[in-house]
Amino acid sequence: MSMNDSDGSPHPVSIDSLHAFTKTAFLSAGLSEADAAVGADVLVTTDAWGIFTHGTKNVKGYLRLLRAGGLRPQGKPKIVAEGPAWAIVDGDASLGMVTSVIAMQTAIAKAKTAGIAYVGVRNSSHYGAAGYYSWLAARAGLIGLSMSNDIPSVAAPGSRGAITGSNPLSYAVPAGKHRTVALDMSTATVAGGKVYAARTRGESIPGNWLIGADGHPTTDPSGYPEVGALQPAAAHKGYGLALLIETLAGLLTGAGVTRQVGSWLWDDPARPTNHGAAFIAIDVNAMAPLADFVRRTEALVDEIHRAPRADGVDQIRVPGEIEWEKLARAEVEGISLPSDVIASLREAATLSGQNLEQTLGL
Amino acid sequence: MSMNDSDGSPHPVSIDSLHAFTKTAFLSAGLSEADAAVGADVLVTTDAWGIFTHGTKNVKGYLRLLRAGGLRPQGKPKIVAEGPAWAIVDGDASLGMVTSVIAMQTAIAKAKTAGIAYVGVRNSSHYGAAGYYSWLAARAGLIGLSMSNDIPSVAAPGSRGAITGSNPLSYAVPAGKHRTVALDMSTATVAGGKVYAARTRGESIPGNWLIGADGHPTTDPSGYPEVGALQPAAAHKGYGLALLIETLAGLLTGAGVTRQVGSWLWDDPARPTNHGAAFIAIDVNAMAPLADFVRRTEALVDEIHRAPRADGVDQIRVPGEIEWEKLARAEVEGISLPSDVIASLREAATLSGQNLEQTLGL
Repeated sequence: MSMNDSDGSPHPVSIDSLHAFTKTAFLSAGLSEADAAVGADVLVTTDAWGIFTHGTKNVKGYLRLLRAGGLRPQGKPKIVAEGPAWAIVDGDASLGMVTSVIAMQTAIAKAKTAGIAYVGVRNSSHYGAAGYYSWLAARAGLIGLSMSNDIPSVAAPGSRGAITGSNPLSYAVPAGKHRTVALDMSTATVAGGKVYAARTRGESIPGNWLIGADGHPTTDPSGYPEVGALQPAAAHKGYGLALLIETLAGLLTGAGVTRQVGSWLWDDPARPTNHGAAFIAIDVNAMAPLADFVRRTEALVDEIHRAPRADGVDQIRVPGEIEWEKLARAEVEGISLPSDVIASLREAATLSGQNLEQTLGL
Repeated sequence: MSMNDSDGSPHPVSIDSLHAFTKTAFLSAGLSEADAAVGADVLVTTDAWGIFTHGTKNVKGYLRLLRAGGLRPQGKPKIVAEGPAWAIVDGDASLGMVTSVIAMQTAIAKAKTAGIAYVGVRNSSHYGAAGYYSWLAARAGLIGLSMSNDIPSVAAPGSRGAITGSNPLSYAVPAGKHRTVALDMSTATVAGGKVYAARTRGESIPGNWLIGADGHPTTDPSGYPEVGALQPAAAHKGYGLALLIETLAGLLTGAGVTRQVGSWLWDDPARPTNHGAAFIAIDVNAMAPLADFVRRTEALVDEIHRAPRADGVDQIRVPGEIEWEKLARAEVEGISLPSDVIASLREAATLSGQNLEQTLGL
């Protein structure tokens, strides 16, 4: 079957058709029209950015939890406490994307009166790409930050096993002609999937990716993930940032913390995971004319683009630039889905009674 | 002379006497009693934490700028714009510590009514250890963040030279019996001083510290700092974080950005440096009973302390734990100052008409 080729889809899939497919999948699991559309928008935008690990590939997994009860199709995220510049949102075990969009929209609205706002989330689930929510703020002319905790997979300096999640951190800054400056990073050195892929290929890995059974760095991925843990990015720095995220997303919200967080992949799919998340919005325009800020940001990006480059380097990029280029291409040409995404979408199609070939025009 | 021995001070120096020395030095340069005391408290606390690169060693350099005009002894930092949860402070080229303490105190006060607050600073200078200001918030029961930009010294992925400063980022979280969880990190892999020390000793360095003349990683420090630049921590992650700090400390405040920032060490000492900084305070107690939050934080730290350790590791620490232990020891035994600090204090003593032996009881 050509669709399972390692080359991916035989031709690109339009953003609209992938959105329709994803929305229908969520509708089939009992989500409202509005919630299904939000979920589709987050995941398809993520694919269009080229971040396929966090896009529609995961619809299959979300459908599984929506059917078993670990995610509530008719969950109603609500603000359970709030003040002038903050709120705590209980996600009611809804799809993580639905709760997170509500939370960032709340942060944006409060920042527009207060200047900055924090919205913490508890009783949420896997929220996909951290960068989507930051971008919501930047699109509205605000600086956005987004972060989430997760099940432990990353060591602390000196630990034998995992201590923190790979807790992602993202920000986005409105940048005028340069769209946004936007970072979306894990606090681990590398994604676990990369270690596992090296194991599958029988290859060794760099010495700062993994610790082995004795708690020390190893270049041998053959025991992962049963043994060892990922290493934090830049050692104590990534570890320290992961604990900040644990603080703002977990300790401050009442969500699960480290081992209290459930896995949306491996645990009982009937059990809500109680992930925590945190969103911060800063209203540039409250502090200075947005146009002046954007002009300064454009100048900084221009300065970086013009800076002397290392031998053999075509371009120095700012964070998020590659994702923007991919999105622009996807809007015209569609998205070339990798084969693992298509294989997963095929299962999601079966689960939601859709015909993949028909819906995606493959 | 024993005081210039490489072993450092012949016996420890009390916190009180080092504070008195530092305060007198600032008074001699024309600072008010209150400002001199603030400057002394920041720098002596930093030494007591064992962060000697950012403590009283730098008094000599600050005195030089205070005399030449790059720092204004009678500067009056003031809030030039504000809202419910934010403010912009113009430092009036005052000592960076004085402006930064005012800024964090403003953030704490606003967070206590709004829940969270951002205070951006422009027209400031070198602010010393980022962690001091975060700790001010944690000491008051709030979560604190502190960050500053600086002159370019760190490469971007693909650049041939420096793009961003080593822009420090710090946070502190109130942690009850564990005092605070507190990170103070540079967004570079390593401090430039470490590279220079390796050069002095004729040693090679790890491959992720420095780029050379061609813009690619090098293990040869012999050209630094004339040639090359530091590498960002965890490559694009440290670079991305440095740009976030540039955004919140520089672009949003009207401070200098990258090459607009002056060096307090190498540029004309009569010229204000226009560093930017940003401070965020989050009032835990606005969102949940502080005691509950502290209990959860204590439990997380306990969990980390009890986690299985790598072979040969005595203790898994949380960020800031080593600094707290050093401070506790310094409060009882005094601070054992390294010889380079004593040599610098000797120059500061000369500049401020003090007798180092008498004042510090050496």
